[in-house]
Amino acid sequence: MSSILRGNKLSVSVYGQSHSKSIGAVIDGLPAGLEIDADRVRAFMSRRAPGQSFFATLRKEADAPTVLSGLVDGKTCGAPLAIKIDNTNTKSEDYEGLKLLPRPSHSDYAAYVKFGGNNDIAGGGQFSGRLTAPLCFAGADCMQLLEQKGISVKSHIYSVKDVTDEPFDLENLYDDDISLDPYFPVISRYKGEQMKTVISTAMENSDSVGGVIECAVLGMPAGIGEPMFDGIENVISKNIFGIPAIKGIEFGSGFSGTLKYGSENNDAFCVNNGKIQTVTNNHGGILGGITSGMPVVSRCAVKPTASIGITQQSVNLQTKKEEDLTIKGRHDPCIVPRAIPAIEAVAAITVLDLLL
Amino acid sequence: MSSILRGNKLSVSVYGQSHSKSIGAVIDGLPAGLEIDADRVRAFMSRRAPGQSFFATLRKEADAPTVLSGLVDGKTCGAPLAIKIDNTNTKSEDYEGLKLLPRPSHSDYAAYVKFGGNNDIAGGGQFSGRLTAPLCFAGADCMQLLEQKGISVKSHIYSVKDVTDEPFDLENLYDDDISLDPYFPVISRYKGEQMKTVISTAMENSDSVGGVIECAVLGMPAGIGEPMFDGIENVISKNIFGIPAIKGIEFGSGFSGTLKYGSENNDAFCVNNGKIQTVTNNHGGILGGITSGMPVVSRCAVKPTASIGITQQSVNLQTKKEEDLTIKGRHDPCIVPRAIPAIEAVAAITVLDLLL
Amino acid sequence: MSSILRGNKLSVSVYGQSHSKSIGAVIDGLPAGLEIDADRVRAFMSRRAPGQSFFATLRKEADAPTVLSGLVDGKTCGAPLAIKIDNTNTKSEDYEGLKLLPRPSHSDYAAYVKFGGNNDIAGGGQFSGRLTAPLCFAGADCMQLLEQKGISVKSHIYSVKDVTDEPFDLENLYDDDISLDPYFPVISRYKGEQMKTVISTAMENSDSVGGVIECAVLGMPAGIGEPMFDGIENVISKNIFGIPAIKGIEFGSGFSGTLKYGSENNDAFCVNNGKIQTVTNNHGGILGGITSGMPVVSRCAVKPTASIGITQQSVNLQTKKEEDLTIKGRHDPCIVPRAIPAIEAVAAITVLDLLL
Amino acid sequence: MSSILRGNKLSVSVYGQSHSKSIGAVIDGLPAGLEIDADRVRAFMSRRAPGQSFFATLRKEADAPTVLSGLVDGKTCGAPLAIKIDNTNTKSEDYEGLKLLPRPSHSDYAAYVKFGGNNDIAGGGQFSGRLTAPLCFAGADCMQLLEQKGISVKSHIYSVKDVTDEPFDLENLYDDDISLDPYFPVISRYKGEQMKTVISTAMENSDSVGGVIECAVLGMPAGIGEPMFDGIENVISKNIFGIPAIKGIEFGSGFSGTLKYGSENNDAFCVNNGKIQTVTNNHGGILGGITSGMPVVSRCAVKPTASIGITQQSVNLQTKKEEDLTIKGRHDPCIVPRAIPAIEAVAAITVLDLLL
Repeated sequence: MSSILRGNKLSVSVYGQSHSKSIGAVIDGLPAGLEIDADRVRAFMSRRAPGQSFFATLRKEADAPTVLSGLVDGKTCGAPLAIKIDNTNTKSEDYEGLKLLPRPSHSDYAAYVKFGGNNDIAGGGQFSGRLTAPLCFAGADCMQLLEQKGISVKSHIYSVKDVTDEPFDLENLYDDDISLDPYFPVISRYKGEQMKTVISTAMENSDSVGGVIECAVLGMPAGIGEPMFDGIENVISKNIFGIPAIKGIEFGSGFSGTLKYGSENNDAFCVNNGKIQTVTNNHGGILGGITSGMPVVSRCAVKPTASIGITQQSVNLQTKKEEDLTIKGRHDPCIVPRAIPAIEAVAAITVLDLLL
Repeated sequence: MSSILRGNKLSVSVYGQSHSKSIGAVIDGLPAGLEIDADRVRAFMSRRAPGQSFFATLRKEADAPTVLSGLVDGKTCGAPLAIKIDNTNTKSEDYEGLKLLPRPSHSDYAAYVKFGGNNDIAGGGQFSGRLTAPLCFAGADCMQLLEQKGISVKSHIYSVKDVTDEPFDLENLYDDDISLDPYFPVISRYKGEQMKTVISTAMENSDSVGGVIECAVLGMPAGIGEPMFDGIENVISKNIFGIPAIKGIEFGSGFSGTLKYGSENNDAFCVNNGKIQTVTNNHGGILGGITSGMPVVSRCAVKPTASIGITQQSVNLQTKKEEDLTIKGRHDPCIVPRAIPAIEAVAAITVLDLLL
Repeated sequence: MSSILRGNKLSVSVYGQSHSKSIGAVIDGLPAGLEIDADRVRAFMSRRAPGQSFFATLRKEADAPTVLSGLVDGKTCGAPLAIKIDNTNTKSEDYEGLKLLPRPSHSDYAAYVKFGGNNDIAGGGQFSGRLTAPLCFAGADCMQLLEQKGISVKSHIYSVKDVTDEPFDLENLYDDDISLDPYFPVISRYKGEQMKTVISTAMENSDSVGGVIECAVLGMPAGIGEPMFDGIENVISKNIFGIPAIKGIEFGSGFSGTLKYGSENNDAFCVNNGKIQTVTNNHGGILGGITSGMPVVSRCAVKPTASIGITQQSVNLQTKKEEDLTIKGRHDPCIVPRAIPAIEAVAAITVLDLLL
Repeated sequence: MSSILRGNKLSVSVYGQSHSKSIGAVIDGLPAGLEIDADRVRAFMSRRAPGQSFFATLRKEADAPTVLSGLVDGKTCGAPLAIKIDNTNTKSEDYEGLKLLPRPSHSDYAAYVKFGGNNDIAGGGQFSGRLTAPLCFAGADCMQLLEQKGISVKSHIYSVKDVTDEPFDLENLYDDDISLDPYFPVISRYKGEQMKTVISTAMENSDSVGGVIECAVLGMPAGIGEPMFDGIENVISKNIFGIPAIKGIEFGSGFSGTLKYGSENNDAFCVNNGKIQTVTNNHGGILGGITSGMPVVSRCAVKPTASIGITQQSVNLQTKKEEDLTIKGRHDPCIVPRAIPAIEAVAAITVLDLLL
């Protein structure tokens, strides 16, 4: 049951491989009567689609979802919302050679063992980042519902390699003057340009880079989430690791909070316009697994794209001999920008489920 | 259903508050016929118990578990294994004053909102670190079963504040000469002494510090775990965040991997004694959510203890006015050492469930 | 994870064997602030307790629950409510002889295979009807909460062997003049006397009888439950089969409805005091898995007690030879009356979970 | 999450409405490397398809499934197996009039309340029996895997209205000479003819009839299933009630077992060819929720088709006035024959999940 993002009320059952007939999802549990704004869904999904920017892979897919069920006259009817996205541009022959030579830091080898060699290797099979497209569809729907509850999800590129943007803080999170470019969202334009340079250099060298995405959920009421194993951190992390290439997650001050004294890391309470808040947000809006009413802030580590053009050492699964491997085709030198909508989508689905 | 660590086959239902009659757990799904070595369980639990070292809180609890069901002649019989640990030393009056003054960075305020003021504040209530004692009992049982499968769980203090131990690497992980002190496990004794100094200083200043715990599961076969939402990272992170004070988790090179090029972070495959392995382990033993056969390595951020003696600003929940709060009593200046067995326990439970 | 009644919001993790130190449950997900009326809980549990009537087994257990956690000043605090009931009167030696001779129609043989001979045979082990005591505790709590929502659970002995009571209908269900004896609830006293005679006869012959329990949930609003796999019938049946000796369940006209024409079995809609209702209730308050607003009516088949004094044929598990078996001790000749509160408890827990 | 048949390892996420673009399912958790025999799947699905016999509805649907993902070279690859079945023959205008006039004993009214009037009424929407087509696809796959384990699923029409077939017994279950007609499986041809007459009469009168389906799983090893809430009865019943029109389920002697003495209903153990068995099978192959090694036998009550041509009383949801309703179009006078493959499919999926 690996491919089901399961909440208490809401679930998203994802299907497809990079080169199967189609990919898609069955979204179960959306409230009935929700009018889905198709244009906004499309706009959101375009942030994840390939070919949007100079850096992204050249493989162009329409990424256009077809709704198979769940809508009547443009509104959800209570039945599962099922969508498919056809795979049209699939050059499987590129991957023939990979069947016996697992790509370093790809899922190839682990999947080969797990599935006894039956796994679909073409285009990454079911492990392809392309599988986040139906998640983005689901997330876009959930965001429209969250919006009606006064909740929004906001992210930016926190870092690419060693170039770090300004972090979200209680000021810039609510500053409407800061508009984040949907395709390369950064707070500091200057840092954004530096990031692009780092990515360009990696690309020129047939290499890749990773980075960190910071995501905030604004408007969450206090008191949501459960102690211990169903807290906000538990459910968000469980679902976020469903996105390929994520290797770490932290909430609030996270790992850097361990460098501070308790007296520095603790968030004093204060009253602001009659509302109980905290002066700082090192707890990332979560105390004991439960929302505090402050922004829910997390950061995820996105590893450098595993597919690089540089020749690497692999092992032939048949001969069990070491062999050189050179991956062909064009690949994203940095998937951070395209991973952002997936992160936002998963956050939106997870948070909406808690509120239903 | 917040307090149930739910696997596919194995679940641990934890109960209790810091000052309730007892705390305990119902462990459901352990295979029948497992002979539990009570001495080893006790030894493991003692690593978490208070009063073991100079630094730990002086509140002494016997922490002695009583088995209520599930054993016949010392062996599991297939019925749920239930235990209780009586709470004997509970000075609830210390906490009376906290009912209306939430402690900064504690769960008090979030729980107050969630439970409409009915939450148990005494000793941290259900959010107390004491609730990890039954988890340690469960984990100790699971470890004995894992051992029979050739799997072991190993951890050390990766850092306390800004003092960092040597990291686990493929050499020291398998070096039997490195014996880790069960109560303060570090690879470098020298760094360990520095950590203790940092903790002492914090204690003297009525302040606290946090740190990072590194945990490795050795001996995991390749091919375990599911793609997307039931991968190793997903289930470990979901369960690890059930331990109080954890604010981040990363696998393999994690966040630091985002500082590298793909060509540096990728783990080349090699053949070692006829076995397919990777030269490095930046992927932390997990590819596409599935084990690769390499050690499963994670690091968790433990925030500085929220309870400090320094006066802090809070807000009176009744008057909605800001008030100074001085927390009385003695508290651990650093819970990192005592959190280690909890981390190991949760890792053991999670991993065993995947193997059942 | 066999012993957890899992809802979406509410779960009851049961533990214990008939002769273990204690039996009990961890109830997770009850709303905080619920004041539990201990007297009513005790009264409800007494309906299940042994020794209440002439027919019931003579083994007397206090059945007095001790609350271990989850209550502060008599109110739920949001933490799991844990209870234990000590096993005080346990004559395990009675069961020694059964270890190798499985009792016909008991779980002995199936458990022996499943647990590799490690299963606890004494008193039925984890399969004992005694395990429904903690369920009754949980159910009694839930009923108090349901009551606040205007919902009540009502049952009677529909039949004992071939003696059948009057069925629940839309008239007698709401007739306050019909008071059901808590220990032997029947609508027709005359039929009740006949049932008692049947039970007496069985007892005299060292034999046993079964019967059918009819249970109605009154006051359920329309629109509760989910289509397909999480409908009311799905979740009630899943949980009800957790009670030992239940071998069938039907809703509304159930099996007898298959003897009718559609035109007879269909329930016409009508308007009653401005409210949409149905004239008859052959659908048992459930249409497409969702409540219709009519009483939710089910009937469960309780098999004749498997423990009888008459000599039966078994097979020695060691020698694999057929052997005669004579079960000693006193056993309930009919568990139907004592199963009723268990049925009501499970119905209450299940229904409350759907409403939370 | 209503439309997901969730097992521990295997899940089937169903989507679609009777008149949506397509219906289908995502089957997650099938072992990789399973070669699916498409012809046998088609043959199995044809038993459920409309238009197979004189009695079945005239609406002809191709019912041809298209595989969207999960297969590579005709074998499962470990990724979810997704299928769609296009809805080609959908005359939605027939249902316009029903929007405000709920059909008696259909889900219309309950769904209207639940989904605030947004539910899809056309063709029964998501409650249509047509949704069992993807279940049959999933079941057919599972059966092929079960077969490799020596397990088979066998059913017959136990009764139609008051005409009852011979029941399954330990003799006829294993008699290879008894071949059951796939489209109208009965043991006694004579009774089968009588059943057909009953159905014809109902059809002539624009009325409908129901019946009972008996289903046996042969070859199940002993020791499968969990005590209490995850027993065989629990999981089978939970999933079987996902099939429209099922209103009751019993195992072994079930309700009729309550008419017997314990001494009659108990199944004595015996040794047969060195194997421990029971002489009779009143326990239906399940003891304490766990398989005994005997055939797992259940019977389900299928209510008379709710759609009948006879004029019935309904209530206009807008005016809240009673109104006469005459349902147009042709409907199955008895869905029992077409429900059989759905029952078998759900049994196969459920049982396979327990064995994975």
